[in-house]
Amino acid sequence: MADRPIEELDWKTPLEVAHKPSLNQIAKTGICGIMDVISPGTPPGSDTATLALLGYDALKVYSGRGALEAIGSGVEVLPGDVAFRCNFAAVDENLVVLDRRAGRIATEDAARLAESIQKVELEEPPAKFLFRNTVQHRAVLIIRGLNLSTAVNDSDPGKAGKKVLEIKPLDGSPATKQTAKILNELMDKFHKVLKVHPVNKERVKRRLPPANIILFRGAGTIPAIKPFSELYGISAACIAATPLIRGACRVAGMKLVNVKGATGTPLTDFMAKAKAAVQASIANDFVLLHVKATDVASHDGNIRQKIELIEKIDRMLGYMLGNIDLGSTYLAVTADHTTSCVTRGHEGDPVPVAITGPYVRRDDVEEFNERACSRGGLSRIRGMDLMLILMNLIGKTKKFGA
Amino acid sequence: MADRPIEELDWKTPLEVAHKPSLNQIAKTGICGIMDVISPGTPPGSDTATLALLGYDALKVYSGRGALEAIGSGVEVLPGDVAFRCNFAAVDENLVVLDRRAGRIATEDAARLAESIQKVELEEPPAKFLFRNTVQHRAVLIIRGLNLSTAVNDSDPGKAGKKVLEIKPLDGSPATKQTAKILNELMDKFHKVLKVHPVNKERVKRRLPPANIILFRGAGTIPAIKPFSELYGISAACIAATPLIRGACRVAGMKLVNVKGATGTPLTDFMAKAKAAVQASIANDFVLLHVKATDVASHDGNIRQKIELIEKIDRMLGYMLGNIDLGSTYLAVTADHTTSCVTRGHEGDPVPVAITGPYVRRDDVEEFNERACSRGGLSRIRGMDLMLILMNLIGKTKKFGA
Repeated sequence: MADRPIEELDWKTPLEVAHKPSLNQIAKTGICGIMDVISPGTPPGSDTATLALLGYDALKVYSGRGALEAIGSGVEVLPGDVAFRCNFAAVDENLVVLDRRAGRIATEDAARLAESIQKVELEEPPAKFLFRNTVQHRAVLIIRGLNLSTAVNDSDPGKAGKKVLEIKPLDGSPATKQTAKILNELMDKFHKVLKVHPVNKERVKRRLPPANIILFRGAGTIPAIKPFSELYGISAACIAATPLIRGACRVAGMKLVNVKGATGTPLTDFMAKAKAAVQASIANDFVLLHVKATDVASHDGNIRQKIELIEKIDRMLGYMLGNIDLGSTYLAVTADHTTSCVTRGHEGDPVPVAITGPYVRRDDVEEFNERACSRGGLSRIRGMDLMLILMNLIGKTKKFGA
Repeated sequence: MADRPIEELDWKTPLEVAHKPSLNQIAKTGICGIMDVISPGTPPGSDTATLALLGYDALKVYSGRGALEAIGSGVEVLPGDVAFRCNFAAVDENLVVLDRRAGRIATEDAARLAESIQKVELEEPPAKFLFRNTVQHRAVLIIRGLNLSTAVNDSDPGKAGKKVLEIKPLDGSPATKQTAKILNELMDKFHKVLKVHPVNKERVKRRLPPANIILFRGAGTIPAIKPFSELYGISAACIAATPLIRGACRVAGMKLVNVKGATGTPLTDFMAKAKAAVQASIANDFVLLHVKATDVASHDGNIRQKIELIEKIDRMLGYMLGNIDLGSTYLAVTADHTTSCVTRGHEGDPVPVAITGPYVRRDDVEEFNERACSRGGLSRIRGMDLMLILMNLIGKTKKFGA
């Protein structure tokens, strides 16, 4: 949601231009500030940002994206497992990538391919693997049963026209060498299964790119963190469609609420998410509602769409303001990072934050945006502080000392 | 440049009183804040302040002033070397200091003495030393070739009328004992050479204080830091006359630009530095321009001079504003510490900071000074954050996470 001033908007940000009465209402009745999600100047990834917003020290606990993504896709990841985000992709006979998403292969086709892939046998037991397709070309891979490491490169070369990369150990440890060996073996065996698979023969006939290789990236393990129940003694629920966000929330011990129509895209059903959040707030001490859409628009450099999406988020918040009791409930709004519509990437500029609810030290900020919030009563905080600030308001923090 | 409110200025600071249209222009078109160069309340040294402003965690990497000063004087310091700032001084027969600067001995005289000193032989090879005079009474000493330590006291008693101090080990390690032994040996042998040296006989005849001893202080090693090229992939240049600042910049991998007329004193050629900075900004991603003069005036308690120097700095910045393209270049101004004209020392009060250039979230601060900047959009940051904030603006930070 957060951005930098943009020339086309007369050097205002999308948040400054959007019509957003509900966001402003939250700012006006609450306490505002700016927040360095990781630290000043550091562009956060979505994974580290979410861990920080959940109150964890991402610089200490972050252990790669793969495991969070896998957990968020509903795959169990155990301590010691190394997990990867995967793509079904199309390569030529020289392993040069033709399409990193295999024509955004249909989920049904990918499921049939995944089933065959799972039958591959590894040379050296007790190493095991688990391969699951998720949505379209996306999949997750988990390796298990040996001393493993995340210090390996991605096989995904990042763009079409480049050759698939061999997995190499990035340090000299036996665990890393072993991990690289297993991954190269899997890549090779998967490729052998896929290139002769009936689904792909059928795809080629239909002039569709064959999903004849699996690209691995984002090696990760589950972060060693304490769940909310242990840290704050609270029950918590997550309303998000993006697997990564769901995974991080799951690791924090939150319940994952499934919402029909929530897609993690600009076409998501904002109102369905709002209703689910209001509902979840009855049975839970804490609810996180995540919207991915504005980030997608920013990565596309689509300023107009970003403004429209902020306005949709605003209407979603309007519903929530009308349906939760702000005499006994706190509502906080923020962004997980600044994404610039100009650079189309995550930036290290701070994000605005506002918290409304009983007993907050209301300041005189009247609008929710990057600049107005910088004059607020929260001043400049860190992402990992927000959760503690909220838990303090609801009386769930522990006194340090006596 | 930063100061506290002063009674003689009707409880305003020198920055608040000075006529400074260019500094105000930077504040007005930019984003402002205040900055704890090290941490709130901690008075920074010039050495730790510079390391922090260059983006390093001075609390972790600072390893004494001597090595930075030596490197900044053009002397090579290797990892493992222990370096000292030295003074040529005059002592009586009881080693009581008569003049800590040997009458600010001429550089030519000091050079002749240094040449003789360098011929001294140490008892126990492979210990080696390197002694170089720099400007007037100033010199550097480097010891090398053994397991050495910086945990030794200065031999410099700090003022005239006191006896030169024996170097003592400040911990029990063999390296420290060895270092202290070598230093005492050198102090003694240097003294023996100097007191009979023709240059000093000549000086005594001319009724000048003899430079008959070398005082050691500020034991330091080179800090273990990664250079800018590795951290951000940038090219960088330093425009400073003060050896310490040059040394810190050199350790960060910056090129040192020599500017005719830049002296590190109130008489420095401000315009020559400005021109060199504009020139350096063409070939480099980052240029640091350091002015020592306001600090000198503050240490002298010379309020009027400090104001005049701020006005000279302002004219220097006026030239820069007129000669760099602020559509593609960022200009940041700050101070490395607050120096009080009243206490005449470095103080732990935060310093003002302003950054102008494309896409900054311009705030409504209209003046560059300690109080106006405290209401700015940067809020309150740490010294070590500034470099990251700047690198983020020019797209040179790495995303943390995925």
